[in-house]
Amino acid sequence: METNKIYSSSPLKSFPTNGGKGPLSYANNCQYQKNGVVLTQALIYEEITKKLDTEFLLSHLNPFRISDMGCSVGPNTFIVVQNIIEAVKSKLNLNKDMIDFQVFFNDHSENDFNTLFKSLPVERNYFAAGVPGSFHRRLLPSSSLHLVNTSYALHWLSKIPEEIQDKNSPAWNKGKVHYSSSSKNVEAAYAAQFANDMESFLKARAEEIVHGGFLAVLLPCIPNEANPSKCTINALFEFMGSGLMDMVNMGSVDEAEVDSFNVPLYFPTQAEVETIIERNGCFKIEKMQQICRPMRGFTRQEVENFAMTVRAAMEEVPREHFGSEIAAEVFNRFSEKLVESCVFSDPTYVPMIDLFAFLKRI
Amino acid sequence: METNKIYSSSPLKSFPTNGGKGPLSYANNCQYQKNGVVLTQALIYEEITKKLDTEFLLSHLNPFRISDMGCSVGPNTFIVVQNIIEAVKSKLNLNKDMIDFQVFFNDHSENDFNTLFKSLPVERNYFAAGVPGSFHRRLLPSSSLHLVNTSYALHWLSKIPEEIQDKNSPAWNKGKVHYSSSSKNVEAAYAAQFANDMESFLKARAEEIVHGGFLAVLLPCIPNEANPSKCTINALFEFMGSGLMDMVNMGSVDEAEVDSFNVPLYFPTQAEVETIIERNGCFKIEKMQQICRPMRGFTRQEVENFAMTVRAAMEEVPREHFGSEIAAEVFNRFSEKLVESCVFSDPTYVPMIDLFAFLKRI
Repeated sequence: METNKIYSSSPLKSFPTNGGKGPLSYANNCQYQKNGVVLTQALIYEEITKKLDTEFLLSHLNPFRISDMGCSVGPNTFIVVQNIIEAVKSKLNLNKDMIDFQVFFNDHSENDFNTLFKSLPVERNYFAAGVPGSFHRRLLPSSSLHLVNTSYALHWLSKIPEEIQDKNSPAWNKGKVHYSSSSKNVEAAYAAQFANDMESFLKARAEEIVHGGFLAVLLPCIPNEANPSKCTINALFEFMGSGLMDMVNMGSVDEAEVDSFNVPLYFPTQAEVETIIERNGCFKIEKMQQICRPMRGFTRQEVENFAMTVRAAMEEVPREHFGSEIAAEVFNRFSEKLVESCVFSDPTYVPMIDLFAFLKRI
Repeated sequence: METNKIYSSSPLKSFPTNGGKGPLSYANNCQYQKNGVVLTQALIYEEITKKLDTEFLLSHLNPFRISDMGCSVGPNTFIVVQNIIEAVKSKLNLNKDMIDFQVFFNDHSENDFNTLFKSLPVERNYFAAGVPGSFHRRLLPSSSLHLVNTSYALHWLSKIPEEIQDKNSPAWNKGKVHYSSSSKNVEAAYAAQFANDMESFLKARAEEIVHGGFLAVLLPCIPNEANPSKCTINALFEFMGSGLMDMVNMGSVDEAEVDSFNVPLYFPTQAEVETIIERNGCFKIEKMQQICRPMRGFTRQEVENFAMTVRAAMEEVPREHFGSEIAAEVFNRFSEKLVESCVFSDPTYVPMIDLFAFLKRI
């Protein structure tokens, strides 16, 4: 039997957010991401109503097809999707029966789609489908989407750069789990992997989005001029690494295990993102805006909640490497260190930025 | 916010097949269904290559969109889909890059989509999506599908007819769990529910399938002239009911609990199916063929395997009503009774028929 490979399931590493609806689940610990999503809804709505070409719209439907890529298990994805649909309808003053909407919820095949599907709004004005697979590759037919959204997902790398795991490389990341306080070689390896991944993402989306369609991006970044080691978001992984080294010193984790462990997250600057988009060449930047959330004056409970959000989003990373028990201990220590730290009060720490970009497929 | 309800999540009862990949899973206990699916692949291939209108095909793609409705967790659904794609490609002598295929795998939102998605063939020549929801309702945009398949799914009722659960109705099904040895009122209530459900299915598919597209159906049936109480398939539920009544007599199950328990499966005749399709009026019957599998001379192991297949497909039905422990006991007793029975040797028992239908959207 002939099998034309147009898509192959991911041999890439994937680290699903915590599934289900329990106390450690992403569904119950995604308030930080939700706040960011909510803050950008008006921007997306405005961009759609200003920039969506009515002539284009009428010639390329029906249905109007949307995808949220890296959607996790909800509920944030449902907020994003509903807002997009309301904006499109408002633009054309569509009456309710004039157009069908179809929404493709994408995430890795290891994502908890069962929870996502059971959480779908009971009353919704769109047809829903789940699309399993890495968004660094093609997921949907050519020119079949009108609008793609991705929120808090592009900072996940498709893999750890090989050189930082290689003892013989100048980029070997010994005793560290991230790049911010490591050598410039390590940081460069992370940056190159991010650029490569975002290029793959844009290349695949350029094939899937019709000309005139849109790509909305929400991505955690750091300011252009910032030193990564003085950014709050990167400091988090210092705490994670230092907690692991404490466990090495106590004998509960092997040092070599920490040397081979790295967190597959990268936080670029706006300048880096712009460069990658321009190099890809398939999208025009309609809007790019930084959304700053100062993250100061947190109560202890708020810091603990934030630590839970980090845990729900990325517990699978240490779990896959060290097992469940060590991973739980890693996050207990992480939460303690975060509470004791000054990253939310010391003004020399630079807060993370949410970068919003609205791109048009040209 | 305006919410135009075009789809609402199912308040209908749904009984997913056993999920995961364990010893009781549907994925590991669907050989009976697999044999039926394999037997019909050549028929589907032949119908597609004979009946698919080349002019239609070229005017309605790309991509060519397929849905398998009631797909469960695999692997049978992957066999069905691959065969359809090969047939379409063969028809047009398509080279590998000429056309995209997109496949929508549908089942209830309670289905184990996580297992389905992780089981997707690594090398595949189609874009895959999962569509959660009852196929008795609209699932996909208007005129967006070229070919829909449904195998071993339409015999599941969307609900138990109310009158058979009503103590004051002449159709009250006291002490029984199915219709074959009950009053004609009970059988009529089941038949009416099946007709109603299949009509809903055809109505929804008629809106989703483009004119000239196809609907392939594989459905367990009984012969036109058969007495339901002498059909092997219905006898199975006699054993289930009798096992439950044994448990009532032993005091482990309350009799009222059995009175209120009924199996939501109906096995129609070909004549009934034809009548419903004709009444719907949106489909032309291109082919209808009965596939007989004698099911005689089984070894004890084969009978036990068959009992496992039944359990994997429908354990959720007694589990939802009686809980996991009683459900397990129900199937242990069912298996014992089936092994001891003569339904696979007594020639007066009429074997089930697999009815294959290939319909064209007119």
